[in-house]
Amino acid sequence: MPRPSVRPQLVEAATKCFHEHGFNGTGIQDIARTAGVPKGSVYNHFENKEALAGEVLDRYAASRRLGMLADGQLAPVPRLRAHFEYLAADLENFSYKRGCMFGNFGAELSNQTDLMRGKVDTGLSTWTDAVTQVLQEARETGALTSPLPPDRLGQFLVDGWEGAVLRAKVTRSRAPLDGFFDVFDALVV
Amino acid sequence: MPRPSVRPQLVEAATKCFHEHGFNGTGIQDIARTAGVPKGSVYNHFENKEALAGEVLDRYAASRRLGMLADGQLAPVPRLRAHFEYLAADLENFSYKRGCMFGNFGAELSNQTDLMRGKVDTGLSTWTDAVTQVLQEARETGALTSPLPPDRLGQFLVDGWEGAVLRAKVTRSRAPLDGFFDVFDALVV
Repeated sequence: MPRPSVRPQLVEAATKCFHEHGFNGTGIQDIARTAGVPKGSVYNHFENKEALAGEVLDRYAASRRLGMLADGQLAPVPRLRAHFEYLAADLENFSYKRGCMFGNFGAELSNQTDLMRGKVDTGLSTWTDAVTQVLQEARETGALTSPLPPDRLGQFLVDGWEGAVLRAKVTRSRAPLDGFFDVFDALVV
Repeated sequence: MPRPSVRPQLVEAATKCFHEHGFNGTGIQDIARTAGVPKGSVYNHFENKEALAGEVLDRYAASRRLGMLADGQLAPVPRLRAHFEYLAADLENFSYKRGCMFGNFGAELSNQTDLMRGKVDTGLSTWTDAVTQVLQEARETGALTSPLPPDRLGQFLVDGWEGAVLRAKVTRSRAPLDGFFDVFDALVV
């Protein structure tokens, strides 16, 4: 029977490997070595690398703190801005090298596995819906005067964020995220 | 001596493979098979897969038609919009499955090869500069009244485009690009 404590270790190790080397650039052996377990024990817990990547992405989605977006203690616009600042701080922790796992897997795997493409699609949609909800709330309280409908704006903020994060990864700098916030401040008014 | 006609065939085949399967998901054997040549002949023309990918990305960069952005026959704002519409039509030709090679390689390879990260960085910077130049021209002719500086706006249009293209790839639809154009029309005024 597989030891239960090994499973979270494997997910943790795979998260690190996939962030740094992508899906196809990571072997099961790399994950096992990073977790400090024998290669065979990976297969005691996961059918294959794709199943492990699916769990990694589910855990990543859960770490995006969408709950922040529903927290009524802050007014809608500052709350939405704080959410993106939280994500920016998370990227800074890794010197902007990691990028976003939705973007990384979406770019690498959309034509390779429907399971992963579906998970990325769902993750981005759920996030977009939560962002749109805050914008809708801002609209209703008169804090959002932009002529763009909240759902269009919500989609573009998420997509624009993904593009800025990718650029931050390529340039290894925060500058593209600062650019995102400048445009955020111009659009979300 | 390598046959000269094989080289462009290899670049063409590699472009297709890298677009569809990424760098690490493509083997030299896949490229040779797609080009209809023996595997060994790839090494007659390219030192390794990375050198071939570098040439593929250079050719991709040259196909982005940055020249459109300097064509004074159209006013700056419609000219810039036409440029992104050209890129959108190129994506439509491949049912939105391909994404942008800058984004794909940037996401997959930024931590794997400095050569490719540098090429993606240069490609995106050159493009951003050309977009910024058009916005600067629009500013000077009074066609751009946005309070955002042209270089900030230029950077965000390129990054926002990359994010929208990624989302189009994940959803296999044009909707994210339509969202980009809605925001373009709201920002570039």
